[in-house]
Amino acid sequence: MTSLPISRFPVAALDDLPDDIQQRFAEVEEKAGFVPNVFRALAWRADEFRAFFQYHDALMDKESPGLSMAEREMIVVATSARNQCQYCVIAHGAIVRIRAKNPRLADQLASNYRKAEITPRQLAMLDFAVKVARQAEEIDEADFARLREAGFDDDDIWDIGAISAFFGLSNRLANMMSLRANDEFYLMGRVPREK
Amino acid sequence: MTSLPISRFPVAALDDLPDDIQQRFAEVEEKAGFVPNVFRALAWRADEFRAFFQYHDALMDKESPGLSMAEREMIVVATSARNQCQYCVIAHGAIVRIRAKNPRLADQLASNYRKAEITPRQLAMLDFAVKVARQAEEIDEADFARLREAGFDDDDIWDIGAISAFFGLSNRLANMMSLRANDEFYLMGRVPREK
Amino acid sequence: MTSLPISRFPVAALDDLPDDIQQRFAEVEEKAGFVPNVFRALAWRADEFRAFFQYHDALMDKESPGLSMAEREMIVVATSARNQCQYCVIAHGAIVRIRAKNPRLADQLASNYRKAEITPRQLAMLDFAVKVARQAEEIDEADFARLREAGFDDDDIWDIGAISAFFGLSNRLANMMSLRANDEFYLMGRVPREK
Amino acid sequence: MTSLPISRFPVAALDDLPDDIQQRFAEVEEKAGFVPNVFRALAWRADEFRAFFQYHDALMDKESPGLSMAEREMIVVATSARNQCQYCVIAHGAIVRIRAKNPRLADQLASNYRKAEITPRQLAMLDFAVKVARQAEEIDEADFARLREAGFDDDDIWDIGAISAFFGLSNRLANMMSLRANDEFYLMGRVPREK
Amino acid sequence: MTSLPISRFPVAALDDLPDDIQQRFAEVEEKAGFVPNVFRALAWRADEFRAFFQYHDALMDKESPGLSMAEREMIVVATSARNQCQYCVIAHGAIVRIRAKNPRLADQLASNYRKAEITPRQLAMLDFAVKVARQAEEIDEADFARLREAGFDDDDIWDIGAISAFFGLSNRLANMMSLRANDEFYLMGRVPREK
Amino acid sequence: MTSLPISRFPVAALDDLPDDIQQRFAEVEEKAGFVPNVFRALAWRADEFRAFFQYHDALMDKESPGLSMAEREMIVVATSARNQCQYCVIAHGAIVRIRAKNPRLADQLASNYRKAEITPRQLAMLDFAVKVARQAEEIDEADFARLREAGFDDDDIWDIGAISAFFGLSNRLANMMSLRANDEFYLMGRVPREK
Repeated sequence: MTSLPISRFPVAALDDLPDDIQQRFAEVEEKAGFVPNVFRALAWRADEFRAFFQYHDALMDKESPGLSMAEREMIVVATSARNQCQYCVIAHGAIVRIRAKNPRLADQLASNYRKAEITPRQLAMLDFAVKVARQAEEIDEADFARLREAGFDDDDIWDIGAISAFFGLSNRLANMMSLRANDEFYLMGRVPREK
Repeated sequence: MTSLPISRFPVAALDDLPDDIQQRFAEVEEKAGFVPNVFRALAWRADEFRAFFQYHDALMDKESPGLSMAEREMIVVATSARNQCQYCVIAHGAIVRIRAKNPRLADQLASNYRKAEITPRQLAMLDFAVKVARQAEEIDEADFARLREAGFDDDDIWDIGAISAFFGLSNRLANMMSLRANDEFYLMGRVPREK
Repeated sequence: MTSLPISRFPVAALDDLPDDIQQRFAEVEEKAGFVPNVFRALAWRADEFRAFFQYHDALMDKESPGLSMAEREMIVVATSARNQCQYCVIAHGAIVRIRAKNPRLADQLASNYRKAEITPRQLAMLDFAVKVARQAEEIDEADFARLREAGFDDDDIWDIGAISAFFGLSNRLANMMSLRANDEFYLMGRVPREK
Repeated sequence: MTSLPISRFPVAALDDLPDDIQQRFAEVEEKAGFVPNVFRALAWRADEFRAFFQYHDALMDKESPGLSMAEREMIVVATSARNQCQYCVIAHGAIVRIRAKNPRLADQLASNYRKAEITPRQLAMLDFAVKVARQAEEIDEADFARLREAGFDDDDIWDIGAISAFFGLSNRLANMMSLRANDEFYLMGRVPREK
Repeated sequence: MTSLPISRFPVAALDDLPDDIQQRFAEVEEKAGFVPNVFRALAWRADEFRAFFQYHDALMDKESPGLSMAEREMIVVATSARNQCQYCVIAHGAIVRIRAKNPRLADQLASNYRKAEITPRQLAMLDFAVKVARQAEEIDEADFARLREAGFDDDDIWDIGAISAFFGLSNRLANMMSLRANDEFYLMGRVPREK
Repeated sequence: MTSLPISRFPVAALDDLPDDIQQRFAEVEEKAGFVPNVFRALAWRADEFRAFFQYHDALMDKESPGLSMAEREMIVVATSARNQCQYCVIAHGAIVRIRAKNPRLADQLASNYRKAEITPRQLAMLDFAVKVARQAEEIDEADFARLREAGFDDDDIWDIGAISAFFGLSNRLANMMSLRANDEFYLMGRVPREK
């Protein structure tokens, strides 16, 4: 257990939080076994907390024909790595490992996604996501043409870009806060679950 | 009136939108006299639309002792300019002019905020906002020290960074969409209102 | 009226200026209704003043079959925005609005020229101008081929590049001086002239 | 087991290698339990192979009062991450975990070393190492002053910079080769060794 | 003698040039022993040619208490190197060698001016010149304070910045033209003149 | 003779060096007429010294059908210039002049290799070398395809990239040390040898 603080900013005590946020804490703890620090660090701003997770869920708790849940998380890891966001790389790296059922993929995406164990279609997806993250001002028709050639439609492209953009927000908040990743994330999805 | 489309993505017809979104359109039209294109372009994704504006309102429809509504909009213009977001610079430039009651300020912030008609305290605010926008990974204690010296407390600093981060999301979506600014924005706040 | 100084450097009194420069002041005031600050701020260096405006006029007071006066000003605004030159964006933005007879164009070019109300030919022109401004060392035959395909000949290409290069000089001087734009520029070309 | 090749370049068969290189393979396999792919991928160039590992050992198989073996590996991970070298981040991340006896440290250094569980002295060390990796041309006396203030002497500073520089070579080779990390590295040092 | 063309653009025949330009050619040939290619390549645009050299002479044919002619040329070489302008580095490198009476200085300035045989005052001068060349938008009061501390007054600072800005123009034209340096420049100032 | 030190770090006295290193000094002095400072500055670290020159010789003391010794040195100069390494540009510039029998080539490569007196095949070689030096993480199949089209095979491509990578190490060490180039290098290869 590390002694680094969770955040540079105040962290509200659980009992002081509004009921709906306490309820959200309970749900995520039920599901994950612990409360990820991003919930604890954002909770001092109740309205922003609610909007943040509502936005998150709209983009990430979703499986579409063009974009699996694992692929959505792959976008998060590849773009957060370019934005140097420690929390998002470590926390969503854990989710990538679990959803893609590949214990190597997250570390590959975080260090250089161009060399990861991915399909050419997924490479096109990540190239676009990283362009949205780092040079969105230069996106042009050629980018859309390449995505369409790779089989993505308007809904998919929006999802790819919006996930990159949303985690661009998340990455900036985390870097501003110096948000610490929970110790639990580091090992998740790395070893086969015991029966 | 220009013939450029509002967005590269589908724009839903008003009648096809959920009631609460139609209601929001009505409210903003009542207040502003027209529906800003960002509402129309985001509406095809109802859940994201709701989260986006909920987040927006939590950060922007707010006046605190440390950060006026005009200053919040100044952050939007300065960071959106560095992100080369045409829509946000033009639309929020209009709001800066109105809220700061200064018809020159938005154009100054958009071209080089370091030379705008602002106070040293506002310069510290914008330097931090732009660092969150462009190099959030390098934020360190020296940045916080400078802000505190300028009189900002934790709540103010969070607001500055969070506004920059939220509009970083907005800027990326707008560049991906090629979101067009409404013609109405260009002249708002430039000429004294007639009685 | 703002209280920021015109320039970080000495500004010569009108009466102390050489006759030919006083004459130039009179001419521009006659034409524009005021003396743009760039004249006042450069005048303490008479020889450089003369060379600067001689160069300026050779490139800008010119209409060729391949490049209209409005297009020349569009180049100035798009490149000056990338160079973050407040004076040039605001002053030449006014001229763009007037010459292109489009009250929106300057703000679009200043924020992200790739999304402005321009033709594909003008986009090729601005892409080249911005490359001259920011990465001139990488200009190669492919850049010339694209311009020729868009219908530009040697004279046009030289003009595009030379305007970008000349305003690169101007932008650097203005940023060094912290040159302030005259209040008059902000509204020029935004409202239909009264008869 | 992944099907990606080890390298874009020819990989020599073990039997075809010179005796001293076969011997080195045997030693490293004895020690690590497997042959890291960097050995296999460099072996087709026997002379470069020998020089590479001779250099590596001179810098890394060394413990000095000012720089522990764990700290040497920390430098490798932090700089290789900025150079986006997948192999080095993953392979040396494993060694960091083992030598620093901290299962979290490598992932923290790889994503944003500024927020890792390190001492201020180690932060000064990594700031210098990353400057050598990314902006060596700007190193000046102020950099040396900060290191000396943190307690590093000439020998330490040389080691920090030389490790960064040597892995800059290694990172470039690995990115050119598209060198694949062995599957074994991913889990090393993450779970307590069984007795 | 190389066979590369002088310029990508038309080069006017001497006889076709206006008298004053022919005269300027004659003068420079008289002085230098040859006509530098920048004269020949710019001459197809007579008005720009005149303004260019008028500007050049105002800044460079000048010796002030604060800035020697050798120092003016040092600024040209250091900034032109950062702008990757082959012509200016080679041609003005020759002039630096002659004016500074140091056959090594130009090559040092061109590769990394921070390590050249210069005084701390000259380092401050070049740091400012390079900032004007590459990040003029960020120039602030701290830059001026450092220059004043090094003994430069307003006239000197203007000269430093204006020389950098003017050669920023020249560098961009040369890169656009692919302007070739005359063979004569390479050896000038490298060997002691024979009596 | 300049008074700048050879290196920021300790420089061992010749007599204190191990025999094999004294021997290497003698050989290089015999061949070149003087001991290049890189030998003197690295010698305080005997093991690194040995590995460094072993590596160097494996890549540079080699002539292959696909890559001449002159071309190997051209790679050094072009990449060292982008890395702003004063020592390598000046020292290897001398070797380029001698090996390529062209007194202009080194200065051209150092200022902007894209405009040097080279073949299209050599331009492809240098484009790849510079990409390895500055953006190795983005190297992809398209880069290899272009090199193969230009006639380079796997051995050549490895050599090009490895030379760039090795001198990336050398450049970083030299910038860290502030390594001074010997006065002898400046004029070598510039004037025809007397018989």
